[in-house]
Amino acid sequence: MELFAVPDLPEVREGDDLAALIRERVDLRADDVVCIASTVVSKTEGRTVDIDEVTAGERAIAVAERLERITGEQKDPRFAEVVLSESESLVLEAPFLLSETRFGHIAPNAGVDRSNVPGADLLLLPTDPTASARRLHEALEVPVIVTDTCGRPFRHGQRGVAIGWAGMPASRDWRGEPDRDGRELSVTVESVVDELAAAANLVGGEGDGGEPAVVVRGFEFGDHAGSEELFRDYEDDLIRQALDAWEFPA
Amino acid sequence: MELFAVPDLPEVREGDDLAALIRERVDLRADDVVCIASTVVSKTEGRTVDIDEVTAGERAIAVAERLERITGEQKDPRFAEVVLSESESLVLEAPFLLSETRFGHIAPNAGVDRSNVPGADLLLLPTDPTASARRLHEALEVPVIVTDTCGRPFRHGQRGVAIGWAGMPASRDWRGEPDRDGRELSVTVESVVDELAAAANLVGGEGDGGEPAVVVRGFEFGDHAGSEELFRDYEDDLIRQALDAWEFPA
Repeated sequence: MELFAVPDLPEVREGDDLAALIRERVDLRADDVVCIASTVVSKTEGRTVDIDEVTAGERAIAVAERLERITGEQKDPRFAEVVLSESESLVLEAPFLLSETRFGHIAPNAGVDRSNVPGADLLLLPTDPTASARRLHEALEVPVIVTDTCGRPFRHGQRGVAIGWAGMPASRDWRGEPDRDGRELSVTVESVVDELAAAANLVGGEGDGGEPAVVVRGFEFGDHAGSEELFRDYEDDLIRQALDAWEFPA
Repeated sequence: MELFAVPDLPEVREGDDLAALIRERVDLRADDVVCIASTVVSKTEGRTVDIDEVTAGERAIAVAERLERITGEQKDPRFAEVVLSESESLVLEAPFLLSETRFGHIAPNAGVDRSNVPGADLLLLPTDPTASARRLHEALEVPVIVTDTCGRPFRHGQRGVAIGWAGMPASRDWRGEPDRDGRELSVTVESVVDELAAAANLVGGEGDGGEPAVVVRGFEFGDHAGSEELFRDYEDDLIRQALDAWEFPA
């Protein structure tokens, strides 16, 4: 398996044909998977916000005031308004906003980003990253993963994850397959789209030298069942239930 | 960047020279990172347990009884005893045992594994995976990551993670570096050892066809600061604090 960045991808704008920009730069093969940072997908989809055009509602003002009281940092209620509008629910309200986005991804501030947005204040995640991946997959004719970079419980640091995918299953299922000793495997469902997103992050990098599109060549899914589930439901997620019952000590 | 499995690694036993087995099969280069599944490291270190030689203590019996009451499944108190002996603390006692291992990794059942252990009932994680990685790194002269596969909050499925590493930092630090628009980056610390472990999992696989050692060739760390921190401290981990305050509804 080999990974390389799509070379010399230009800064994209709303309406740009991202698939065409990639095809012009790489001869894709049938065994390729293309991983694309959500930032560039969002830019082509015009998912930017000028903070001066946002009016904070009552809930956003209350959320920002509480955050300021707890963290001591000044919080812009208009930013909280944008985060709330991108959130299905808040998993945490303090000491930072941890959102479930409308498409099921858990991310600080619903993934609303203040960096890397020429000419706008805020960059939102794509509205429906799996729909974005599907459009790109249809144009590129290989599996496509839309990626985000975020932190996680228990471990320091951030890593690449998938937030949308098309043309391949989210996971491969090893359940019922024997291990080397003939016993049933304890490892069950492997989130291959997340592992591919993590691998792509090693090559794409961040910042002004960052390459937002990475080709993974020669990944073998193998002869396994697949699953399309990536985001846990609330009922299935003990951590969310525990966080719901908990309040950050102010 | 390229990834390939170390070919034809035999089933290993206690005392085997894992580094020699790898060197015999691959001409390693200076830009290689070797990712090795903790299972094979544990086997060479003799980290197996025969359940008949375990006596369950009072706490293990109580933990197993509570689990059985809640889940309805019969639980062997001797298995709980082994998990407790491998745990610095229990993050969750129900509906399953979620442990902080003695070296800081959060894993169900302290990573104690019932599959893939010829001639023994249980396979434990290495006592100190970073020490194991250091020994392998000294013999192989390239960075080494000892990997585990486990699930996570918020997302279905399992993915590869690092539990020990040597010869490279755990993370690369992008803080203070500018983005394409000259603003400071919001992405901060990237857990490269976890991303490498995830990438290796795509190639190594599980089960009886699994290849437990994978070479990552040509990963460029780049000109960044590094960090050796991987596991969060309790004080830094809101999720652990929330789980501590929570009780699974019996």
